[in-house]
Amino acid sequence: MNQASSDPRRLSGIFCPNITPVDEKGRVDEEQLRGYVDWLIQRGVDGLYPNGSTGEFVRFTPEERRRVVRIVIDETAGRVPVLAGAAEANAAETIAACNAYGEMGVVAVAIVAPFYYRLSGDAVHAYFTEIAEHVDVDVTLYNIPMFASPIDVDTVYRLASEQPRIIGIKDSTGDVANMLRMMAAIRPIRDDFSFLTGWDASLVPMLVAGVDGGTNATSGIVPELTRAVHRTVLAGDIDAAMKMQYHLLTLFDRMLGLGEFPDGFRAGALARGWDLGRGRLSYSTERSERLATAQPEIDSLIGEMAQRYGGPGEGDS
Amino acid sequence: MNQASSDPRRLSGIFCPNITPVDEKGRVDEEQLRGYVDWLIQRGVDGLYPNGSTGEFVRFTPEERRRVVRIVIDETAGRVPVLAGAAEANAAETIAACNAYGEMGVVAVAIVAPFYYRLSGDAVHAYFTEIAEHVDVDVTLYNIPMFASPIDVDTVYRLASEQPRIIGIKDSTGDVANMLRMMAAIRPIRDDFSFLTGWDASLVPMLVAGVDGGTNATSGIVPELTRAVHRTVLAGDIDAAMKMQYHLLTLFDRMLGLGEFPDGFRAGALARGWDLGRGRLSYSTERSERLATAQPEIDSLIGEMAQRYGGPGEGDS
Amino acid sequence: MNQASSDPRRLSGIFCPNITPVDEKGRVDEEQLRGYVDWLIQRGVDGLYPNGSTGEFVRFTPEERRRVVRIVIDETAGRVPVLAGAAEANAAETIAACNAYGEMGVVAVAIVAPFYYRLSGDAVHAYFTEIAEHVDVDVTLYNIPMFASPIDVDTVYRLASEQPRIIGIKDSTGDVANMLRMMAAIRPIRDDFSFLTGWDASLVPMLVAGVDGGTNATSGIVPELTRAVHRTVLAGDIDAAMKMQYHLLTLFDRMLGLGEFPDGFRAGALARGWDLGRGRLSYSTERSERLATAQPEIDSLIGEMAQRYGGPGEGDS
Amino acid sequence: MNQASSDPRRLSGIFCPNITPVDEKGRVDEEQLRGYVDWLIQRGVDGLYPNGSTGEFVRFTPEERRRVVRIVIDETAGRVPVLAGAAEANAAETIAACNAYGEMGVVAVAIVAPFYYRLSGDAVHAYFTEIAEHVDVDVTLYNIPMFASPIDVDTVYRLASEQPRIIGIKDSTGDVANMLRMMAAIRPIRDDFSFLTGWDASLVPMLVAGVDGGTNATSGIVPELTRAVHRTVLAGDIDAAMKMQYHLLTLFDRMLGLGEFPDGFRAGALARGWDLGRGRLSYSTERSERLATAQPEIDSLIGEMAQRYGGPGEGDS
Repeated sequence: MNQASSDPRRLSGIFCPNITPVDEKGRVDEEQLRGYVDWLIQRGVDGLYPNGSTGEFVRFTPEERRRVVRIVIDETAGRVPVLAGAAEANAAETIAACNAYGEMGVVAVAIVAPFYYRLSGDAVHAYFTEIAEHVDVDVTLYNIPMFASPIDVDTVYRLASEQPRIIGIKDSTGDVANMLRMMAAIRPIRDDFSFLTGWDASLVPMLVAGVDGGTNATSGIVPELTRAVHRTVLAGDIDAAMKMQYHLLTLFDRMLGLGEFPDGFRAGALARGWDLGRGRLSYSTERSERLATAQPEIDSLIGEMAQRYGGPGEGDS
Repeated sequence: MNQASSDPRRLSGIFCPNITPVDEKGRVDEEQLRGYVDWLIQRGVDGLYPNGSTGEFVRFTPEERRRVVRIVIDETAGRVPVLAGAAEANAAETIAACNAYGEMGVVAVAIVAPFYYRLSGDAVHAYFTEIAEHVDVDVTLYNIPMFASPIDVDTVYRLASEQPRIIGIKDSTGDVANMLRMMAAIRPIRDDFSFLTGWDASLVPMLVAGVDGGTNATSGIVPELTRAVHRTVLAGDIDAAMKMQYHLLTLFDRMLGLGEFPDGFRAGALARGWDLGRGRLSYSTERSERLATAQPEIDSLIGEMAQRYGGPGEGDS
Repeated sequence: MNQASSDPRRLSGIFCPNITPVDEKGRVDEEQLRGYVDWLIQRGVDGLYPNGSTGEFVRFTPEERRRVVRIVIDETAGRVPVLAGAAEANAAETIAACNAYGEMGVVAVAIVAPFYYRLSGDAVHAYFTEIAEHVDVDVTLYNIPMFASPIDVDTVYRLASEQPRIIGIKDSTGDVANMLRMMAAIRPIRDDFSFLTGWDASLVPMLVAGVDGGTNATSGIVPELTRAVHRTVLAGDIDAAMKMQYHLLTLFDRMLGLGEFPDGFRAGALARGWDLGRGRLSYSTERSERLATAQPEIDSLIGEMAQRYGGPGEGDS
Repeated sequence: MNQASSDPRRLSGIFCPNITPVDEKGRVDEEQLRGYVDWLIQRGVDGLYPNGSTGEFVRFTPEERRRVVRIVIDETAGRVPVLAGAAEANAAETIAACNAYGEMGVVAVAIVAPFYYRLSGDAVHAYFTEIAEHVDVDVTLYNIPMFASPIDVDTVYRLASEQPRIIGIKDSTGDVANMLRMMAAIRPIRDDFSFLTGWDASLVPMLVAGVDGGTNATSGIVPELTRAVHRTVLAGDIDAAMKMQYHLLTLFDRMLGLGEFPDGFRAGALARGWDLGRGRLSYSTERSERLATAQPEIDSLIGEMAQRYGGPGEGDS
């Protein structure tokens, strides 16, 4: 695949968009976060990605978001790179967060386009331009049009050609053709630009098509599987990787379809022994019961996958 | 219309979702905010609505949002009621903001459904339930599905029947039929429940259909017109009100279509003599130039409407 | 309202988009169609509108569509005007159908924008231009963007200003603001241009806003109600009309929500004594059973409305 | 890839959804159709697919659609299989067309889900069930939700498990993950079921993921390229195939973006020497001029691709 000849500066591999553990009062649970991060690294994630959508960044306060990154950086201790979600209420606040994370030692920040209002490509470009010109850290764009203003191919191209600080894009659409359009436009002008996919359901096709890696929620549940997928594609065994993709798809669809996002992924972590608490979202009695009822099946599904990809002797915490 | 027999406890009339003035450094401009609020009251708005979508609440920090409400309450000094936008990052933060605003003296808060993630009706219900059960202030729901999770008719009905603290809904869809569905479902069980429309383009049809009032961005630009519309419908002169509706539609469409929201409304305020600064959004040179080029036409259009509805002798600031 | 001073050439009042009766073998049932049309006229519809969406025009062949119009024209015998749906596979076929219907004596044809493919405004304009320049009958545009290419305000304006043969638009969006935009653009240049709404859920607000009438599926079930609505708005009694609107909304929503469109309207006709058969659509056993189970409730709801608006002594067939 | 071990009964390879040639009066041009079909076969398409979306089936009459299939079958003379689009106004008409095409000798028919109205999964299932139980020819489902009612994974699964006559699906979404979901659900129960993709922009990722082939509009313009793509993936040289995919993407995007669909593909055919006339759509002067202006660039782009993949000595007609 293309990765073989890729620029060594590129972000690559599987970055885990880790769930944010909370205690029974809804506070960030530092102890669990440290333990979970440690476990993820041991199980083979290539990087951490706190304050992503899976980390429910919008449901925490600016101070909490900073604290989460600080803990992850500290616990990681340089073993793997950290890509920190840094979107705040406006460009000035985002720039301040970026620089704070830069000083903490992240490899780069990831910034989602403005959300709530839907902005035009021109306004998205102006937003990232203002940020890129005022930060002391590398920036990756985060495209997730189902939740935020879209970052279209032309805008990515303009930003890549104008801003050396912008060094990649994380795209969560799962649209392979659009990823090809972005790579076709930008690779000729930027060897160091990374393309990461956040849509687990098409990870293997994306890797085969030449993306550098992924930021995949499933890597927080069965990191052994997403690691195996990445390594198997790199090794050129596409048939084996496609077989793994079907496992990944089953897992991803089941967790995505359970309750509200990321309820299913919290259930998945619990199946691995990690009680990360319930998210910041409010729960009805009915939803709580549905989640409890579904847990045994999730346990069974995750257990089977952990067994298959984790190998003997690797006990869960 | 229905209002004649409405419960006196209902919110009614035109609440102005006021723009948040910022200075040249992007900081909240207290002096301009005080002056602008004073002008709006003099020109006849029935209430103020800080931290709405027109107020760009998501582009300010939690502290700034509190400061804005404090200033508006202080400047208003009881002359008109204040409805404060109170959505924060999660239920707990929102509850804290609600109670802070309650102590400041707002008549009620307005809370948009969770955004970024799109929640199911069940999760939206759980969110508002958690809030309603923990606040000491009246709550209005804010439905704006183009930006946030939708609040469907069933959810509004359930919340209205279960939570006396929830006393109204502000709906910004412009969908008259859906407003009728909500009124048909809820009026039989709640005399005190208010229905407000945030879509200026169909204000008269909505008022004729029986809504209690509106939270209309145009009221921040030509408050004389939105006041006249409301009073004329109340007086039963529908033909005259419909003629005004066409003026309102022209104004609204022109300001909505200019640049990014709420650029056009800031341009409209400038046409009335209020330089409220540029919003928190980043600007490209091209957009800045387009806005500057459009200003004379906006001045002319707004000036004509202010003249027509403001009457002689009412000089602008 | 505006209708009082409207051009007498305009189409006005309630045109019934009649269901197409089929026998047990799925063939057009001429006898039932004649009886049903006769009943509709006796109950007060202002016009007939065969081959509309309610008439399932796309599920019949070109020959069947012609036969349906011929029967309706013949049975109507000039008692009320007939507006015939005339869309065929392409402009040439549509022109031929238009001219055939013109010779049969329709007051005008209604032509939906091309469907399946979604066309640009320019291509929609070219399509209607080609038709308007080759027909010997008046044409109304039919805008229903949930099923066909949208006809935007600019396109309606261009067509109205260029083509005297195009004499109106039937809009089924229910979007009052968009209807206002169209009336604001076109009424100054065309006194004879009609605006009809096909969305029963907002019929009264639309009439109050000044449309000339409607093509409403509910008029095929309780024509007494839609007639009363129209007459009551014309008489200026908006409060009484709004009360009727709530009845209309309940009926419309219930029939629209039952099975696949227009299953619920066929059930409604059955409640009035008209067994118009099942539509051309395929039925699963489950759907057939659901429809059968729902029939008693439909009977009851329709019966109550027929009683209320039909008055004593008007026995159903 | 999976195809190596696939059931020999499966449809596989690249079926060309051929443009329907029309003369200057808009009539089906039999002579050009015969010549074009012959050229396509010589250039290596694995099958023909008349009356697809590229063939503008909805813009022709039922009689014309039958004539087109008859000509294609006759000219093909068994050299490659023919898959005929067979959707008509309703199930009965579609069944009649299917059986007519079956007698003509097609390998299978392709039937799009009902369009105009959006049907539920249950109604789509009922429609295909009625057809499958009454035809004497194999049927492939055609899923194109941007134009017609969607055929969801559950519906495909139910139909595949119940109806042996349904032997495949052609999916034009380009959604790789959804294709994986369908293959995961159906391959375990049906060895003979084919999966074909109609979205050229992701053909290689789809083939790598295991689909059996494609029905790709670009194969009507540069059949040498789509053939090379398919053969190269089969041979296991994914890197080479991905390089071709970028060429395919450029071509497809350029032709799809030109005018109204399939204007760009007609321009592409013209670049290969095939004047297939203008489609059945109406044209504005402006659109005609835009198409004429773009032709030289299309000629150049297509020429380069034909040269690269066609090899020396293969002169175009």
